[in-house]
Amino acid sequence: MSAAEPGEDRLLQSVRWDSQGLVPAIAQEAGTGKVLMMAWMNRDALQATVSEGRAVYFSRSRGCLWRKGEQSGHVQLVREIRLDCDGDAILLQVEQRGGVACHTGRHSCFFQRLEDGTWRVVEAVLKDATEIYGDSR
Amino acid sequence: MSAAEPGEDRLLQSVRWDSQGLVPAIAQEAGTGKVLMMAWMNRDALQATVSEGRAVYFSRSRGCLWRKGEQSGHVQLVREIRLDCDGDAILLQVEQRGGVACHTGRHSCFFQRLEDGTWRVVEAVLKDATEIYGDSR
Repeated sequence: MSAAEPGEDRLLQSVRWDSQGLVPAIAQEAGTGKVLMMAWMNRDALQATVSEGRAVYFSRSRGCLWRKGEQSGHVQLVREIRLDCDGDAILLQVEQRGGVACHTGRHSCFFQRLEDGTWRVVEAVLKDATEIYGDSR
Repeated sequence: MSAAEPGEDRLLQSVRWDSQGLVPAIAQEAGTGKVLMMAWMNRDALQATVSEGRAVYFSRSRGCLWRKGEQSGHVQLVREIRLDCDGDAILLQVEQRGGVACHTGRHSCFFQRLEDGTWRVVEAVLKDATEIYGDSR
Protein backbone atom coordinates (compact mmCIF):
# COMPACT_ATOMS: atom_id res chain seq x y z
CA MET A 1 0.00 0.00 0.00
CA SER A 2 1.73 3.18 -1.13
CA ALA A 3 1.73 6.37 0.92
CA ALA A 4 0.29 8.25 -2.06
CA GLU A 5 -2.78 6.04 -2.19
CA PRO A 6 -5.97 8.04 -1.73
CA GLY A 7 -7.67 7.64 1.64
CA GLU A 8 -10.94 6.51 0.13
CA ASP A 9 -9.27 3.56 -1.54
CA ARG A 10 -7.53 2.60 1.70
CA LEU A 11 -10.75 2.63 3.65
CA LEU A 12 -12.54 0.53 1.02
CA GLN A 13 -9.71 -2.00 0.83
CA SER A 14 -9.94 -2.73 4.55
CA VAL A 15 -13.50 -3.97 4.13
CA ARG A 16 -14.06 -7.63 3.32
CA TRP A 17 -16.75 -7.31 0.66
CA ASP A 18 -18.74 -10.47 0.07
CA SER A 19 -18.99 -12.28 -3.27
CA GLN A 20 -21.62 -9.74 -4.36
CA GLY A 21 -19.47 -6.80 -3.32
CA LEU A 22 -21.59 -6.04 -0.26
CA VAL A 23 -21.11 -5.67 3.47
CA PRO A 24 -23.82 -5.51 6.17
CA ALA A 25 -24.19 -2.13 7.85
CA ILE A 26 -25.91 -1.63 11.19
CA ALA A 27 -27.40 1.76 12.05
CA GLN A 28 -27.43 2.59 15.74
CA GLU A 29 -28.99 5.76 17.06
CA ALA A 30 -26.47 8.06 18.69
CA GLY A 31 -27.63 9.01 22.15
CA THR A 32 -30.25 6.32 22.73
CA GLY A 33 -28.04 3.44 21.53
CA LYS A 34 -31.08 1.89 19.89
CA VAL A 35 -30.32 -0.37 16.93
CA LEU A 36 -32.52 1.06 14.19
CA MET A 37 -31.92 -1.17 11.19
CA MET A 38 -29.50 -3.31 9.24
CA ALA A 39 -28.96 -2.81 5.54
CA TRP A 40 -26.22 -3.38 2.98
CA MET A 41 -23.50 -1.26 1.44
CA ASN A 42 -21.39 -1.67 -1.65
CA ARG A 43 -18.23 0.35 -2.28
CA ASP A 44 -20.13 3.27 -3.79
CA ALA A 45 -22.56 3.33 -0.87
CA LEU A 46 -19.78 3.48 1.71
CA GLN A 47 -17.94 6.16 -0.25
CA ALA A 48 -21.14 8.20 -0.56
CA THR A 49 -21.88 7.76 3.15
CA VAL A 50 -18.43 9.09 4.01
CA SER A 51 -18.47 11.98 1.58
CA GLU A 52 -22.09 13.06 2.18
CA GLY A 53 -22.26 12.43 5.93
CA ARG A 54 -25.58 10.65 5.64
CA ALA A 55 -26.34 6.94 5.42
CA VAL A 56 -26.34 5.65 1.87
CA TYR A 57 -27.06 1.95 1.43
CA PHE A 58 -27.27 -0.40 -1.52
CA SER A 59 -30.79 -1.65 -2.15
CA ARG A 60 -30.53 -5.31 -3.07
CA SER A 61 -34.13 -5.39 -4.30
CA ARG A 62 -33.77 -2.34 -6.53
CA GLY A 63 -30.11 -2.92 -7.41
CA CYS A 64 -29.07 0.68 -6.86
CA LEU A 65 -27.86 3.13 -4.23
CA TRP A 66 -30.45 4.03 -1.64
CA ARG A 67 -30.01 7.38 0.06
CA LYS A 68 -31.92 6.63 3.25
CA GLY A 69 -34.70 9.17 3.59
CA GLU A 70 -34.72 10.24 -0.05
CA GLN A 71 -38.47 9.62 -0.24
CA SER A 72 -39.51 9.75 3.41
CA GLY A 73 -37.25 12.55 4.62
CA HIS A 74 -36.07 10.16 7.35
CA VAL A 75 -32.43 10.85 6.66
CA GLN A 76 -29.74 9.36 8.88
CA LEU A 77 -26.96 11.82 9.63
CA VAL A 78 -23.79 9.85 10.27
CA ARG A 79 -21.83 10.68 13.41
CA GLU A 80 -19.37 7.80 13.34
CA ILE A 81 -18.45 4.80 11.21
CA ARG A 82 -16.88 1.67 12.64
CA LEU A 83 -15.56 -1.55 11.14
CA ASP A 84 -15.42 -4.86 12.98
CA CYS A 85 -12.40 -7.05 13.71
CA ASP A 86 -12.53 -9.08 10.53
CA GLY A 87 -13.70 -6.22 8.34
CA ASP A 88 -16.98 -7.75 7.29
CA ALA A 89 -19.50 -5.61 9.17
CA ILE A 90 -19.98 -1.87 9.53
CA LEU A 91 -21.58 0.01 12.42
CA LEU A 92 -22.93 3.52 11.95
CA GLN A 93 -23.80 5.93 14.72
CA VAL A 94 -26.59 8.04 13.29
CA GLU A 95 -28.93 10.85 14.12
CA GLN A 96 -32.32 9.69 12.87
CA ARG A 97 -34.28 12.55 11.35
CA GLY A 98 -37.98 12.33 12.13
CA GLY A 99 -37.39 9.65 14.76
CA VAL A 100 -38.55 6.98 12.33
CA ALA A 101 -36.13 4.53 10.71
CA CYS A 102 -38.55 1.86 9.55
CA HIS A 103 -40.70 2.01 6.42
CA THR A 104 -43.59 0.79 8.60
CA GLY A 105 -43.44 4.10 10.47
CA ARG A 106 -41.79 2.70 13.59
CA HIS A 107 -38.71 4.05 15.34
CA SER A 108 -36.71 0.87 14.73
CA CYS A 109 -37.02 -1.94 12.21
CA PHE A 110 -36.50 -4.44 15.06
CA PHE A 111 -40.03 -4.20 16.39
CA GLN A 112 -40.80 -7.94 16.60
CA ARG A 113 -39.77 -9.66 19.82
CA LEU A 114 -39.72 -13.40 20.33
CA GLU A 115 -42.21 -14.37 23.06
CA ASP A 116 -43.21 -17.99 23.69
CA GLY A 117 -42.23 -19.09 20.20
CA THR A 118 -43.99 -16.22 18.43
CA TRP A 119 -42.71 -12.94 16.98
CA ARG A 120 -44.80 -10.30 18.69
CA VAL A 121 -44.96 -6.66 17.54
CA VAL A 122 -43.80 -4.59 20.51
CA GLU A 123 -43.33 -1.11 19.04
CA ALA A 124 -45.97 1.36 17.99
CA VAL A 125 -46.34 2.95 14.59
CA LEU A 126 -45.34 6.59 15.06
CA LYS A 127 -46.21 7.74 11.58
CA ASP A 128 -48.59 6.21 9.09
CA ALA A 129 -46.98 4.86 5.91
CA THR A 130 -49.28 6.91 3.70
CA GLU A 131 -48.18 9.99 5.63
CA ILE A 132 -44.53 9.07 5.08
CA TYR A 133 -44.69 8.14 1.43
CA GLY A 134 -47.80 9.96 0.25
CA ASP A 135 -49.24 8.50 -2.94
CA SER A 136 -45.88 7.32 -4.23
CA ARG A 137 -46.23 3.87 -2.64
CA MET B 1 -50.18 -22.25 9.02
CA SER B 2 -52.05 -24.69 11.27
CA ALA B 3 -52.72 -24.00 14.93
CA ALA B 4 -51.04 -27.28 15.82
CA GLU B 5 -47.75 -26.24 14.23
CA PRO B 6 -44.92 -26.27 16.77
CA GLY B 7 -43.75 -22.85 17.92
CA GLU B 8 -40.18 -23.46 16.85
CA ASP B 9 -41.23 -24.05 13.27
CA ARG B 10 -43.35 -20.92 13.26
CA LEU B 11 -40.50 -18.78 14.52
CA LEU B 12 -38.11 -20.19 11.93
CA GLN B 13 -40.57 -19.71 9.08
CA SER B 14 -40.87 -15.99 9.80
CA VAL B 15 -37.17 -15.51 9.10
CA ARG B 16 -36.09 -14.79 5.55
CA TRP B 17 -33.06 -17.06 5.30
CA ASP B 18 -30.66 -16.18 2.50
CA SER B 19 -29.68 -18.54 -0.33
CA GLN B 20 -27.20 -20.21 2.02
CA GLY B 21 -29.80 -20.61 4.75
CA LEU B 22 -28.28 -17.86 6.90
CA VAL B 23 -29.39 -14.63 8.52
CA PRO B 24 -27.19 -11.94 10.09
CA ALA B 25 -27.48 -11.64 13.86
CA ILE B 26 -26.39 -8.58 15.81
CA ALA B 27 -25.44 -8.94 19.47
CA GLN B 28 -26.09 -5.85 21.58
CA GLU B 29 -25.12 -5.68 25.21
CA ALA B 30 -28.11 -5.36 27.52
CA GLY B 31 -27.64 -2.42 29.83
CA THR B 32 -24.88 -0.58 28.00
CA GLY B 33 -26.53 -0.81 24.56
CA LYS B 34 -23.12 -1.38 23.03
CA VAL B 35 -23.13 -3.31 19.76
CA LEU B 36 -20.69 -6.14 20.43
CA MET B 37 -20.56 -8.10 17.20
CA MET B 38 -22.36 -9.33 14.14
CA ALA B 39 -22.35 -12.99 13.16
CA TRP B 40 -24.56 -15.41 11.26
CA MET B 41 -27.21 -17.94 12.21
CA ASN B 42 -28.75 -20.84 10.37
CA ARG B 43 -31.97 -22.53 11.50
CA ASP B 44 -30.18 -24.84 13.92
CA ALA B 45 -28.27 -21.91 15.42
CA LEU B 46 -31.43 -19.90 16.06
CA GLN B 47 -33.21 -22.92 17.50
CA ALA B 48 -30.25 -23.65 19.78
CA THR B 49 -30.08 -19.99 20.85
CA VAL B 50 -33.74 -20.07 21.82
CA SER B 51 -33.63 -23.42 23.60
CA GLU B 52 -30.29 -22.90 25.38
CA GLY B 53 -30.67 -19.18 26.20
CA ARG B 54 -27.15 -18.43 24.99
CA ALA B 55 -25.97 -17.11 21.64
CA VAL B 56 -25.26 -19.87 19.15
CA TYR B 57 -24.08 -18.78 15.73
CA PHE B 58 -23.14 -20.57 12.53
CA SER B 59 -19.45 -20.29 11.73
CA ARG B 60 -19.15 -19.76 8.00
CA SER B 61 -15.41 -20.47 8.07
CA ARG B 62 -15.74 -23.72 9.99
CA GLY B 63 -19.11 -24.71 8.54
CA CYS B 64 -20.62 -25.68 11.87
CA LEU B 65 -22.51 -24.34 14.88
CA TRP B 66 -20.49 -22.04 17.08
CA ARG B 67 -21.55 -21.81 20.68
CA LYS B 68 -20.14 -18.38 21.46
CA GLY B 69 -17.72 -18.73 24.36
CA GLU B 70 -17.24 -22.49 24.03
CA GLN B 71 -13.45 -22.01 24.01
CA SER B 72 -13.05 -18.60 25.61
CA GLY B 73 -15.75 -18.80 28.26
CA HIS B 74 -17.10 -15.52 26.88
CA VAL B 75 -20.63 -16.83 26.67
CA GLN B 76 -23.46 -14.50 25.67
CA LEU B 77 -26.58 -15.06 27.75
CA VAL B 78 -29.57 -14.06 25.66
CA ARG B 79 -32.10 -11.72 27.25
CA GLU B 80 -34.19 -10.94 24.18
CA ILE B 81 -34.41 -11.85 20.50
CA ARG B 82 -35.84 -9.50 17.90
CA LEU B 83 -36.53 -9.77 14.18
CA ASP B 84 -36.62 -6.84 11.79
CA CYS B 85 -39.45 -5.67 9.57
CA ASP B 86 -38.59 -7.79 6.56
CA GLY B 87 -37.42 -10.77 8.60
CA ASP B 88 -33.85 -10.79 7.32
CA ALA B 89 -31.92 -9.61 10.38
CA ILE B 90 -31.92 -10.65 14.03
CA LEU B 91 -31.01 -8.55 17.06
CA LEU B 92 -30.01 -10.19 20.33
CA GLN B 93 -29.86 -8.46 23.69
CA VAL B 94 -27.12 -10.29 25.55
CA GLU B 95 -25.26 -10.35 28.81
CA GLN B 96 -21.62 -10.69 27.83
CA ARG B 97 -19.76 -12.97 30.22
CA GLY B 98 -16.22 -11.76 30.92
CA GLY B 99 -16.94 -8.38 29.31
CA VAL B 100 -15.13 -9.47 26.16
CA ALA B 101 -16.98 -10.28 22.93
CA CYS B 102 -14.10 -10.04 20.46
CA HIS B 103 -11.51 -12.73 19.80
CA THR B 104 -8.90 -9.96 19.95
CA GLY B 105 -9.72 -9.53 23.65
CA ARG B 106 -11.69 -6.32 23.23
CA HIS B 107 -15.13 -5.55 24.61
CA SER B 108 -16.65 -5.10 21.15
CA CYS B 109 -15.64 -6.32 17.69
CA PHE B 110 -16.34 -2.80 16.34
CA PHE B 111 -13.11 -1.29 17.63
CA GLN B 112 -11.98 0.42 14.41
CA ARG B 113 -13.32 3.93 13.83
CA LEU B 114 -13.04 5.82 10.58
CA GLU B 115 -10.95 8.96 11.09
CA ASP B 116 -9.66 11.03 8.16
CA GLY B 117 -9.95 8.13 5.71
CA THR B 118 -8.25 5.60 8.00
CA TRP B 119 -9.62 2.89 10.25
CA ARG B 120 -8.15 3.67 13.65
CA VAL B 121 -8.18 1.25 16.59
CA VAL B 122 -10.05 3.05 19.38
CA GLU B 123 -10.64 0.32 21.96
CA ALA B 124 -8.16 -1.31 24.27
CA VAL B 125 -7.40 -4.99 24.55
CA LEU B 126 -8.87 -6.07 27.89
CA LYS B 127 -7.57 -9.61 27.83
CA ASP B 128 -4.67 -11.05 25.91
CA ALA B 129 -5.60 -13.64 23.25
CA THR B 130 -3.18 -16.18 24.71
CA GLU B 131 -4.90 -15.71 28.06
CA ILE B 132 -8.29 -16.26 26.42
CA TYR B 133 -7.46 -19.23 24.26
CA GLY B 134 -4.41 -20.67 26.01
CA ASP B 135 -2.30 -22.92 23.78
CA SER B 136 -5.26 -24.03 21.68
CA ARG B 137 -4.76 -21.28 19.12
